[in-house]
Amino acid sequence: MDFRQKWLAAVQRKNSLLCVGIDPAEAAQRHGKQMPDGVNKTDWTLSIIDAVAPYTAAIKLNRNYFKDISRDAMRSLNDRIHAQGMVSIDDSKLADIGDTNDAGIYHAKQEGFDAITYAPFPGNTLQAGAQAKAHGLGLIPLVLMSNPEYQLMKSALIQGEPLYRFLAKQAAEAQAAGIVIGAPSSGNHITIEEISEVARILPEALVLVPGIGAQGGDIAPILRIFGQRTIANVGRAIIYAQDPAQEAKTYRDMLAQARG
Amino acid sequence: MDFRQKWLAAVQRKNSLLCVGIDPAEAAQRHGKQMPDGVNKTDWTLSIIDAVAPYTAAIKLNRNYFKDISRDAMRSLNDRIHAQGMVSIDDSKLADIGDTNDAGIYHAKQEGFDAITYAPFPGNTLQAGAQAKAHGLGLIPLVLMSNPEYQLMKSALIQGEPLYRFLAKQAAEAQAAGIVIGAPSSGNHITIEEISEVARILPEALVLVPGIGAQGGDIAPILRIFGQRTIANVGRAIIYAQDPAQEAKTYRDMLAQARG
Repeated sequence: MDFRQKWLAAVQRKNSLLCVGIDPAEAAQRHGKQMPDGVNKTDWTLSIIDAVAPYTAAIKLNRNYFKDISRDAMRSLNDRIHAQGMVSIDDSKLADIGDTNDAGIYHAKQEGFDAITYAPFPGNTLQAGAQAKAHGLGLIPLVLMSNPEYQLMKSALIQGEPLYRFLAKQAAEAQAAGIVIGAPSSGNHITIEEISEVARILPEALVLVPGIGAQGGDIAPILRIFGQRTIANVGRAIIYAQDPAQEAKTYRDMLAQARG
Repeated sequence: MDFRQKWLAAVQRKNSLLCVGIDPAEAAQRHGKQMPDGVNKTDWTLSIIDAVAPYTAAIKLNRNYFKDISRDAMRSLNDRIHAQGMVSIDDSKLADIGDTNDAGIYHAKQEGFDAITYAPFPGNTLQAGAQAKAHGLGLIPLVLMSNPEYQLMKSALIQGEPLYRFLAKQAAEAQAAGIVIGAPSSGNHITIEEISEVARILPEALVLVPGIGAQGGDIAPILRIFGQRTIANVGRAIIYAQDPAQEAKTYRDMLAQARG
């Protein structure tokens, strides 16, 4: 089963399009929300996984927050994600070339992940797609990010077309399992036209959508276009809630309703 | 002391512009060169650090090959690098936004690194520069990569200028400690004109140059332009040599000669 199939099976199993993004901030790290003082990061993450599992089809672990945990701890997280009937995404935004990307994908596989995110900066998406396939992992390249600074980047002209379209075509050629598209909102630069264009280029791919919840994006137009191929990521609004299970249920239901 | 000052001090101390890039491949990982069977990755890396130290000013750890080692093990590598009078670079090619980049930089600092590489895909180099400064780490954005697939990317037009020039200006504005420039060779697309242009935009920044040794690039034109600001990275040609110390000495001397 490839990652696309694993995701669609999890959606059926959980009756949910929700992906919970876990990025455990330590007290020293951020002035805003963070893990409670004195908890073990692995234990805390396991407790979130268990709490949200009934309402959630995927867990995305934000690699940059997990640089301190051991190989065994990382495996235990992925084992739990799978035991709870969900798929797991390594949000590494891999951005290298050749053997280094292969190493990143190899280790993600060793850790038990099902997919890995990828930043197509060096231009070698085709090679990364083949490497991911060889390791049995889904590759999820960034295509349309919603941060303000990406507005200039997405419009850069490459071979006469805007970068995001070029990247979407590369992702299609690489047979990427999915792509990343930020949720459009009145406060950002993502347009429905751009999303529709990318959807035409990638009629089968999954879309991982960050920027719902805390970041305030609107998921409805994406759900209308991509349906159950939408991996709707919510992070801090769930993991730092007083009751993560209840919050996950609320988002699961909101997604079902928005999908109509 | 910022990273630039640390590097220049290490260059004086070691009388060397050599950076040794360590990417320990496991037997299962690559058909080419790899660590000897049955060795411990941390111990093997420590032995390389010790062997090359007399001839080497910096060690670059390729993060995607170290995903399995513990926080303590990573700290022990950086402690040894510093005890041996060298600076340490986390080759993570961080490629995210906001709090996630901050987390990556925070953890690199916790691990004892002096600098971190950065892939400026999402467009937020300015923010990453400020974050790196706040954590006391040097930021090293990719600007001119030498892989064939980057030829199209570097020439993408952004605000009417080629991407690599835009990225060089962003790096300058972000007060990045250094940038990455691939070594030019007859077999790749990097030109002296491009390098000179970037050098004019960044008259103070360090340049980290992969692609010497195994990848066959020519370091001489870069040395002529950047002098002691050149962090000349050699990886597999040294770490997988029968005698890594001897090989490091050979490269150190070659660099001194090429610099003239």
